[in-house]
Amino acid sequence: MSAADPNRPKARRARGLMDRRGFGLGLERGLIQRISKVYDDWGFEPLETPAFEYADALGKFLPDQDRPNEGVFALQDDDEQWLALRYDLTAPLARFVAENYDALPKPYRRWAAGPVWRNEKPGPGRFREFWQCDADTVGSASPAADAEMIAMACAAYDAVGLSAGKVQVKFSTRRVLDAVLERIGVPAGAFSTRLIVLRAIDKYDRLGREGVAALLGAGRKDESGDFTKGAGLDATQAAAVLDFVTAGAGARAEVLDRLEAVAGPAAVTELREMDAALTALHIGDSRAAIDPTIVRGLEYYTGAVFEAQLVGADGAGFGSVGGGGRYDDLVARFRGERIPATGFSIGVSRLAAALQAQAASETAGPVVVLVMDQARIADALAMAGELRAAGVRAEAYLGGGGMKAQLKYADKRAAPVAVIQGGDELAKGVVTLKDLKLGAKIAASLGEDREAYAKAREQVQMEAPRAQLVAGVQHLLARGE
Amino acid sequence: MSAADPNRPKARRARGLMDRRGFGLGLERGLIQRISKVYDDWGFEPLETPAFEYADALGKFLPDQDRPNEGVFALQDDDEQWLALRYDLTAPLARFVAENYDALPKPYRRWAAGPVWRNEKPGPGRFREFWQCDADTVGSASPAADAEMIAMACAAYDAVGLSAGKVQVKFSTRRVLDAVLERIGVPAGAFSTRLIVLRAIDKYDRLGREGVAALLGAGRKDESGDFTKGAGLDATQAAAVLDFVTAGAGARAEVLDRLEAVAGPAAVTELREMDAALTALHIGDSRAAIDPTIVRGLEYYTGAVFEAQLVGADGAGFGSVGGGGRYDDLVARFRGERIPATGFSIGVSRLAAALQAQAASETAGPVVVLVMDQARIADALAMAGELRAAGVRAEAYLGGGGMKAQLKYADKRAAPVAVIQGGDELAKGVVTLKDLKLGAKIAASLGEDREAYAKAREQVQMEAPRAQLVAGVQHLLARGE
Repeated sequence: MSAADPNRPKARRARGLMDRRGFGLGLERGLIQRISKVYDDWGFEPLETPAFEYADALGKFLPDQDRPNEGVFALQDDDEQWLALRYDLTAPLARFVAENYDALPKPYRRWAAGPVWRNEKPGPGRFREFWQCDADTVGSASPAADAEMIAMACAAYDAVGLSAGKVQVKFSTRRVLDAVLERIGVPAGAFSTRLIVLRAIDKYDRLGREGVAALLGAGRKDESGDFTKGAGLDATQAAAVLDFVTAGAGARAEVLDRLEAVAGPAAVTELREMDAALTALHIGDSRAAIDPTIVRGLEYYTGAVFEAQLVGADGAGFGSVGGGGRYDDLVARFRGERIPATGFSIGVSRLAAALQAQAASETAGPVVVLVMDQARIADALAMAGELRAAGVRAEAYLGGGGMKAQLKYADKRAAPVAVIQGGDELAKGVVTLKDLKLGAKIAASLGEDREAYAKAREQVQMEAPRAQLVAGVQHLLARGE
Repeated sequence: MSAADPNRPKARRARGLMDRRGFGLGLERGLIQRISKVYDDWGFEPLETPAFEYADALGKFLPDQDRPNEGVFALQDDDEQWLALRYDLTAPLARFVAENYDALPKPYRRWAAGPVWRNEKPGPGRFREFWQCDADTVGSASPAADAEMIAMACAAYDAVGLSAGKVQVKFSTRRVLDAVLERIGVPAGAFSTRLIVLRAIDKYDRLGREGVAALLGAGRKDESGDFTKGAGLDATQAAAVLDFVTAGAGARAEVLDRLEAVAGPAAVTELREMDAALTALHIGDSRAAIDPTIVRGLEYYTGAVFEAQLVGADGAGFGSVGGGGRYDDLVARFRGERIPATGFSIGVSRLAAALQAQAASETAGPVVVLVMDQARIADALAMAGELRAAGVRAEAYLGGGGMKAQLKYADKRAAPVAVIQGGDELAKGVVTLKDLKLGAKIAASLGEDREAYAKAREQVQMEAPRAQLVAGVQHLLARGE
């Protein structure tokens, strides 16, 4: 095949997909390991369903039905049946539970981590493949199961270094709003009014009290002049909803009392039970707060809803790093009967991005043993082996380049130390160890001053007896920490 | 939706796909963690490419072109371009390297673990989705890079408990056979003859010397009467090939001498360099042996080939648990120039199956705290929290069942201990701890003898002060080990 072959395929990723490597990928995999360890400890078992399902079994239960271009990747099997790549980890769970209902322990507690695919218009920060890490309890109607999800999510965030003060889970439940709407005379069947109300509440963060009041009433004209039709509530009705929306500030106990005043005692029973369970699990107000403006997946969740948000200066720009809620209807699609279920999904890709932005620097690469003479490559392999046996990440250079190319390679790998044994060193029974991190530091600070550089160089490079290879490298690594 | 709704979708997995859960899945994930730790230590960095690629970029480079029904899952993007799910982790690597060639350190060393998909006819033990765990070095033509793959695979098998004597990597190289064929007058361009010869060698394990001799000559009629056309070699030519095939028994040094006698010194240079590198990495004959009958992916590999096999009684029926080799042509599809590359792929699904068959028993489930009174569910949550804080996997029962259903649930979860605090226990300030493992053992050994069972029962159940919950559970867990 010639280099100019016009039939040669172009090497390119498909649109909206990512290659991920090195530090960022390692960070994300580490997150999943630590989070799944927490799920295991809490009695959740791992489950892995296939990447695709029969399209009719998967259905279309995307949490955010509002989103434009929502969609799945579909393909036709050789028996003509339509398959679709999973768009979340919950729809396959519903299929799995329905298919294996009798054999499963009930409640069935499982966690899952894996990629999901959405056939949407890609954009900046918006990909068509990304990872989720979920835990779900299927078969428990108890508010304690919802509270457990929140508490376990807090433990999972703890496990990845986001302890109290860095992440807060905000939660609410549909039932309180239902009670408020019933009290002001908006019936349960008035779907379009309710949808407009929910959307208005969802915008409280952005539009504030006045904007939401307009959307609850006649409607609102935004800065560009576009008009959004309102829910058509009268002033008294809108005031009640606004009292509900603004009830959420401060300790859970206070918010509960305010909500009870707006919606009545029966409507807050569920939240009171969640609060008690959270307290039993030592989750205080700073970790989990009631926030009536939390809405999420308008036509998907049936009770409690949760959302984890990065807080403080660190959280700026990242927002939600997980969420979930109660979805009692999902398995009913298959079985006809309602099966109560609740779950929490951690957005690991977004979490990794947030943590990476906070991380001071990338981790160091492996120690690289250079090869000055291809005939002695086995010596270099043996040295790398000795270093690994002592717990030091190490490799021998296996390319065909000379000294300069090899040092450039070590740089690209972020190697902290290079090990060199040329003919002279071999004759003397020593190795040269080069502290690449210190070298980079000195080079950066001295700029073009060659003389000073030469002086500093003796610190960068040291000779060690061959038998002291491991000790010498460990010395340089310890110095650099 | 009514239970009899004819439009209700059926809950079923698509053909040839698996749901995996619990112990088996946990085992496989653990394998991948331990293997990838080894890859990291050896200086390989993680890479994750998307699940699908443009079909033209993916190409069709399946290692086993011979296999019937080979194929990929293809889907059309909304801009009409064809995409295909990856069928291995190597073809996407080739695309990635070609796309990012200038920016990558060379050699580029990466590992990857993930599912791959093949649109084949499913059958027993043959699935359309399975996991691979690969390491590759792209940009090194050195036999040391091939040897490193073998040595690192041995370290990876070590890390999952398959040390020396349990797994052996067998390796060979195309070049020795090339030299033999050249010597006996079969030119490099005689593709169909060479293919028949390779296939005949591949069958040596099954057919033995005589069967292979027939396939090298005129052909062979099997027991069912089917005739397979042979390579058409004459007796002298066939004898030379057979000398090559049977050269592989015993220490690497001996096999090398025998191969040199058949193929000449130049042909075994590569294998000698691999042997030297393996020795430098402390990989002895019992861990890695030269075996000329190792063929693998006929039109895919261009030099060294490796295959890891379970050995001894444990390995019966499992065979290959990994393999790989040198593939210098894969990136050339995109770039026009040949880029040397070598890799090793560990079949984690098959490895997990082999290890699971050897595993004595499943791991225990979490401790389950029963809930005797729904109003006191917070107490149960707090107890589970205390146990977890002490490092004991634990959960509270969150379903709606009574005592009997809850104990049945604990059984299904393989819970080692159940914690019970009914009204009486609460009044006395104690908890009842039930040793479910011992209970099951006693029940099994006593059969129907109710009286003996009643006597033994006091060992199964104990009361502990509420403040001694954690100590009591830890006592029962330690007793059961």
